[in-house]
Amino acid sequence: MTTSTHAPVDQSVFLRACRGEPVPHPPVWFMRQAGRSLPEYRKIRAGIPMLEACRRPDLVCEITLQPVRRLGVDAAIFFSDIVVPLAAVGVDLDIVPGTGPVVGQPVRSAADVDRLRPLTPADVEYVSEAVRLLVAELGGIPLIGFAGAPFTLASYLVEGGPSRTYARTKALMYGQPDVWHALCARLAQITREFLEVQIAAGASAVQLFDSWAGALSEADYRSYVLPHSAAVLAGLDRVPRIHFGVGTGHMLGAIAEAGADVVGVDWRTPLDVAAAQIGPGRAVQGNLDPTVLFAPWEFVEAQVRRVLAEGAAAAGHVFNLGHGVLPDTDPDILGRVVDLVHGGSRP
Amino acid sequence: MTTSTHAPVDQSVFLRACRGEPVPHPPVWFMRQAGRSLPEYRKIRAGIPMLEACRRPDLVCEITLQPVRRLGVDAAIFFSDIVVPLAAVGVDLDIVPGTGPVVGQPVRSAADVDRLRPLTPADVEYVSEAVRLLVAELGGIPLIGFAGAPFTLASYLVEGGPSRTYARTKALMYGQPDVWHALCARLAQITREFLEVQIAAGASAVQLFDSWAGALSEADYRSYVLPHSAAVLAGLDRVPRIHFGVGTGHMLGAIAEAGADVVGVDWRTPLDVAAAQIGPGRAVQGNLDPTVLFAPWEFVEAQVRRVLAEGAAAAGHVFNLGHGVLPDTDPDILGRVVDLVHGGSRP
Repeated sequence: MTTSTHAPVDQSVFLRACRGEPVPHPPVWFMRQAGRSLPEYRKIRAGIPMLEACRRPDLVCEITLQPVRRLGVDAAIFFSDIVVPLAAVGVDLDIVPGTGPVVGQPVRSAADVDRLRPLTPADVEYVSEAVRLLVAELGGIPLIGFAGAPFTLASYLVEGGPSRTYARTKALMYGQPDVWHALCARLAQITREFLEVQIAAGASAVQLFDSWAGALSEADYRSYVLPHSAAVLAGLDRVPRIHFGVGTGHMLGAIAEAGADVVGVDWRTPLDVAAAQIGPGRAVQGNLDPTVLFAPWEFVEAQVRRVLAEGAAAAGHVFNLGHGVLPDTDPDILGRVVDLVHGGSRP
Repeated sequence: MTTSTHAPVDQSVFLRACRGEPVPHPPVWFMRQAGRSLPEYRKIRAGIPMLEACRRPDLVCEITLQPVRRLGVDAAIFFSDIVVPLAAVGVDLDIVPGTGPVVGQPVRSAADVDRLRPLTPADVEYVSEAVRLLVAELGGIPLIGFAGAPFTLASYLVEGGPSRTYARTKALMYGQPDVWHALCARLAQITREFLEVQIAAGASAVQLFDSWAGALSEADYRSYVLPHSAAVLAGLDRVPRIHFGVGTGHMLGAIAEAGADVVGVDWRTPLDVAAAQIGPGRAVQGNLDPTVLFAPWEFVEAQVRRVLAEGAAAAGHVFNLGHGVLPDTDPDILGRVVDLVHGGSRP
């Protein structure tokens, strides 16, 4: 890649699609495209804990670029983890391989919330540096900033780790709404600042991951979560804002209302159904089931064509999976999907 | 309890609500009402592995009755586990505390499917005996038969245990549809026979648990799953059939079409929304978030009243949670919910 011959990033297929402008083909990238499905990622990460990798600009830059080089995707996603900004403000946590984020002292009281301090750019200077390196390397290819949304971050802080039921999270939400809202307001500040830092350093778009918001009813989402996600997204409207959660098909309108220019959709909701739910003027992204990539190519191809056809119903369409790339995925299949979306084929 | 003074079970509030007939108040029972939330259950299960407990008619009878005695619910649910019929046909599996079902040799090929033999009533004589004991004890209180649906059973067999992504299950479904359909056809026979045995011994209704079907899009559910669940439910229409899966709000119409007289709904979909999706002539069940029971009583009460109001929109309403009772739930709260649904209050 060079930075001399590319079209301006602002005119990239990805950003045009996010804005609902005409494009020769939908742009394509994959959630978790930078990660364990790539052998070069497994090699460079060997022996380096996740949080350490996220704090080393040289590694973040290289890992973020790997799928761009190999797959020819239309956007890079900043390599990070949703708990990076929490660790940056001093929360005692670790990312345990095979488990996920584990928090030393769960947050379950007003006093716990009070200990959560605001994030400043100085806390994440390594993020600014990595973004600057990346933007220089990427040239005309846009970089998408990355952050977790308040509800999903709160769920890890309250549960102390991953959960299937979110019982403690919801118990706090229902039983101590003041503590809940205070926690989410602090998390919204941290998340917004984490994304501001990335935009200031050159990110062209942001994706807010509210991975587990789909565990809530729409009524609970609107009461307890939407205002905080909206507080994150409201001030970032100088770049396209993608907003995604798994299993949010029952409340895509609310996900959009939180301030999404592009609404991320999982594999359960076809993009034309999603487009009808979110109304005009917003783009959609997602829907291809990550497990489809384990099927024979003929099946993959048919599903990609279905997603392309259904995505055409929206104001804009960013091709993506309905959730992250699974670790066992064959990168060659990802490459063939990119080519298919681009209107060609790969031998 | 005695069997001499009760009204006929056929005229119970529960069965009348399932049939959409007028009732003085909605009937109420709780998924997993027989289980770890009750101290008497933890006591009687101490040192006895789950599968062994499910094979002992005296224990099954006692455990099934415990919540009826303590809580005053309007129906008993047969105490079992969805993998019991699989173990009964010789599948090498265990239920590991804290993990769930673990299968010795996962099913991933046509040869694996061929080894899965049909279930006969003789394989589960302990089930017949437990149901007969229970029906005699329950008198006018209906017993709900219990089974897991083909997709959910298949997911355990293919994955080898619980899963978050169902990647191997879907890979088999998409990549080897013939093997998938053969597997589900065998599981449908096993499930149907397991429920037939319970009805023949006196169960007044059945609930088919397709716990994890919500992991699928509606299109995939209709192609790969619905025909098999319909094969289970089609022949059982001499009793009300309840059909439930978590996170199926995007396809409740399909869940109903599989042959449900009562459609189970999780906490994400309000019952009035569900009633509109499934159309006239079917009852609804569920929706109260199990985590709500950890909130202060005022909050619980408001949520129960909301569910009652929304449930009134359907042809029939069976009050229940949106998923199983969580182990840490206070049984006293369950009792207060029963009284509230019955129109009274408990001090």
